[in-house]
Amino acid sequence: MSASAVRFADRLNNVETSAIRELFKLLGKPGIISFAGGFPDVGLVDVDGIRAATLAALEHEPAGALQYGATEGYAPLREQLSAFMAAKGGQVAPNQLIVTTGSQQALDLLGKTLVSPGDKVIVEGPTFLATIQCFRLYGAELVSAPIDGSGVDVERLEQLIVEHRPKFVYLIPTFGNPSGATLTLERRKRVLELAVKHQTLIVEDDPYGDLWFDAPPPPSLLALSDQVPGSRDCLVHCGSLSKTLSAGLRLGWMIAPDELLAKAVMCKQFSDANSSTFAQATAAQYLKAGRMAANLERARAVYAERARTLCQGLREQLGDAIEFVAPQGGLFVWARLTGAGGKVADAAEFSRRAIEAGVAFVPGAPFYCEQPDASTLRLSFATSDLDKIRDGVARLAAAL
Amino acid sequence: MSASAVRFADRLNNVETSAIRELFKLLGKPGIISFAGGFPDVGLVDVDGIRAATLAALEHEPAGALQYGATEGYAPLREQLSAFMAAKGGQVAPNQLIVTTGSQQALDLLGKTLVSPGDKVIVEGPTFLATIQCFRLYGAELVSAPIDGSGVDVERLEQLIVEHRPKFVYLIPTFGNPSGATLTLERRKRVLELAVKHQTLIVEDDPYGDLWFDAPPPPSLLALSDQVPGSRDCLVHCGSLSKTLSAGLRLGWMIAPDELLAKAVMCKQFSDANSSTFAQATAAQYLKAGRMAANLERARAVYAERARTLCQGLREQLGDAIEFVAPQGGLFVWARLTGAGGKVADAAEFSRRAIEAGVAFVPGAPFYCEQPDASTLRLSFATSDLDKIRDGVARLAAAL
Repeated sequence: MSASAVRFADRLNNVETSAIRELFKLLGKPGIISFAGGFPDVGLVDVDGIRAATLAALEHEPAGALQYGATEGYAPLREQLSAFMAAKGGQVAPNQLIVTTGSQQALDLLGKTLVSPGDKVIVEGPTFLATIQCFRLYGAELVSAPIDGSGVDVERLEQLIVEHRPKFVYLIPTFGNPSGATLTLERRKRVLELAVKHQTLIVEDDPYGDLWFDAPPPPSLLALSDQVPGSRDCLVHCGSLSKTLSAGLRLGWMIAPDELLAKAVMCKQFSDANSSTFAQATAAQYLKAGRMAANLERARAVYAERARTLCQGLREQLGDAIEFVAPQGGLFVWARLTGAGGKVADAAEFSRRAIEAGVAFVPGAPFYCEQPDASTLRLSFATSDLDKIRDGVARLAAAL
Repeated sequence: MSASAVRFADRLNNVETSAIRELFKLLGKPGIISFAGGFPDVGLVDVDGIRAATLAALEHEPAGALQYGATEGYAPLREQLSAFMAAKGGQVAPNQLIVTTGSQQALDLLGKTLVSPGDKVIVEGPTFLATIQCFRLYGAELVSAPIDGSGVDVERLEQLIVEHRPKFVYLIPTFGNPSGATLTLERRKRVLELAVKHQTLIVEDDPYGDLWFDAPPPPSLLALSDQVPGSRDCLVHCGSLSKTLSAGLRLGWMIAPDELLAKAVMCKQFSDANSSTFAQATAAQYLKAGRMAANLERARAVYAERARTLCQGLREQLGDAIEFVAPQGGLFVWARLTGAGGKVADAAEFSRRAIEAGVAFVPGAPFYCEQPDASTLRLSFATSDLDKIRDGVARLAAAL
């Protein structure tokens, strides 16, 4: 291609192809056991329920399922999502949420509507990789708020808000990716108070909250906003069907203050006009049929057992060379190599050895937008059965 | 909402809510006949074929249809689209195209990858409304190239290319929206020559090319690029299933030079990760089943008859007060009020009178990014049956 016919936009200088993409190319190696993925287990998807839902949509609402639709989302789905949120304590009228093409699009619309080049955005360190790149494409300068096993450090967060006056703060408070961490109830309330005190927009990304193991997590920031006057006006909540119903439908939703929601709809009109109405009508019929509760119950039990197996294996076989807080839900274990007993403490080096031993995970450094901790790593238990998990842990131990 | 918690990005200052949105609110009026829409007729969608396709996808490839997918697109769909393009003379390997969430997303990705604030983009005057706003959101300064019944004026286009050195030229060469015009074979070759001569990227948006009436249109710029050495490296082609299979699947595709395609994939990763694999697997099964040819044949016949009925009615009942070139395909008639016989020559005024008379169309001015022609209007015959079309024309005549 002639360099002169295609001249790229300056904003591409802010991003690079993901560092972990290279790793994923290695996963094709035969027989490798992968803790590297970030996907839910497609084997847990309720195929029968989805088939029934799509047949119902084509029979009862073909014009809705097969034509263009409202940019805001298909009305019957917005109603179902409103009810789904209400059951979790989030009071949201159907017109207070919009349907997005996965929650990734909600992040994109937040970048498009809110971020001018040079604006600050605070994220957790570590946070979801595609968030970092998504916001940087709009010119955001990311600031990292430290986390521990109980989520973001709220005292440090307040200092950073005061120092940087960010356009918004992006958090995954429940079973975070990659951290697996869950923000405590006390800290949740503090985050909402900070939002009001400093008039700072908080974005709560919640794709994993339904995947709890032994007990439900604390209420979402959205559900708690009733208890902190004024906080709802400073809050965006992003939800997703990708980890609970099917990632193939590519549907998420965003709840936001009215004016922001209106601007996001305007931007979405020029991003993709509307999310697939075929997928939306299918999802609406699925939720209407009342199969979600049983579907989630089954998924929770499977993921919980896989998580327990991975955590137990790591403790037994890697001992004090690794430390982590066992997750209470979600898809990930976030761990740190301690270097104890002279064992390897660099996760990139450990990753290379692990792949040679036939097991993969993701080194943690790329999940930090600044000051990466090279000793961290992310392990997903989501898509391996128990035998594979045990085998994988044994290979990790051998590689260490 | 507190103004201080939500502070919008500067780029929103470049766009406004579409002028025709207000018009569409009036369409709810009972009994109104609408030539205003831009949608295909959902009554023509092959519901049985789509049902069979989605059942096949869920039976034979549930993991593909229900899991996350490659950002580039679902491999079996890329193969089918490659074959679909080849049948129309466009030689495109599956990895030379990416699947997009409707062709609107292809436009968004072009804006994201190519346009820095202040960059020039040349479009037709008039052109697709959402294109104007989409590119402006990325800061593009739009320049309008005049058209006539044979598409864009290529001599004027060359002058504008030389004067403005645009990032790209955006054209709808076949059955344009709103123009209904088709670029002649001679002008198509000239456009490709200009692309090579000036090393200017040309974007061919082709959502309507399959909807021809009596004879196929000239080959696409893509198909013709073989005949103009070097032109393929300067060419982007956007396709869509929205007008041919179903708008509800929300699937389009983009063909572009390798480096541009790679950057578009990177950006798409942060826009929506991938288009619905559920929709993609359904579309792939539909195309594989070989039903598209008969489906298109049926749609062409229906649209052709509606177009003839509208054009004949306009000529008979509005006479020399209106002028237009009868379209050879697509969904639109683009017309100009002549003011002959002292009749109304302002399309906005005519629109107000028409709505009072129970018929709607879209005034043409908003389709121009500069120097609007206030006497123009767009009429779509796509979604009305023949009786409604005749009634609607009679009401137009009464309003005039």
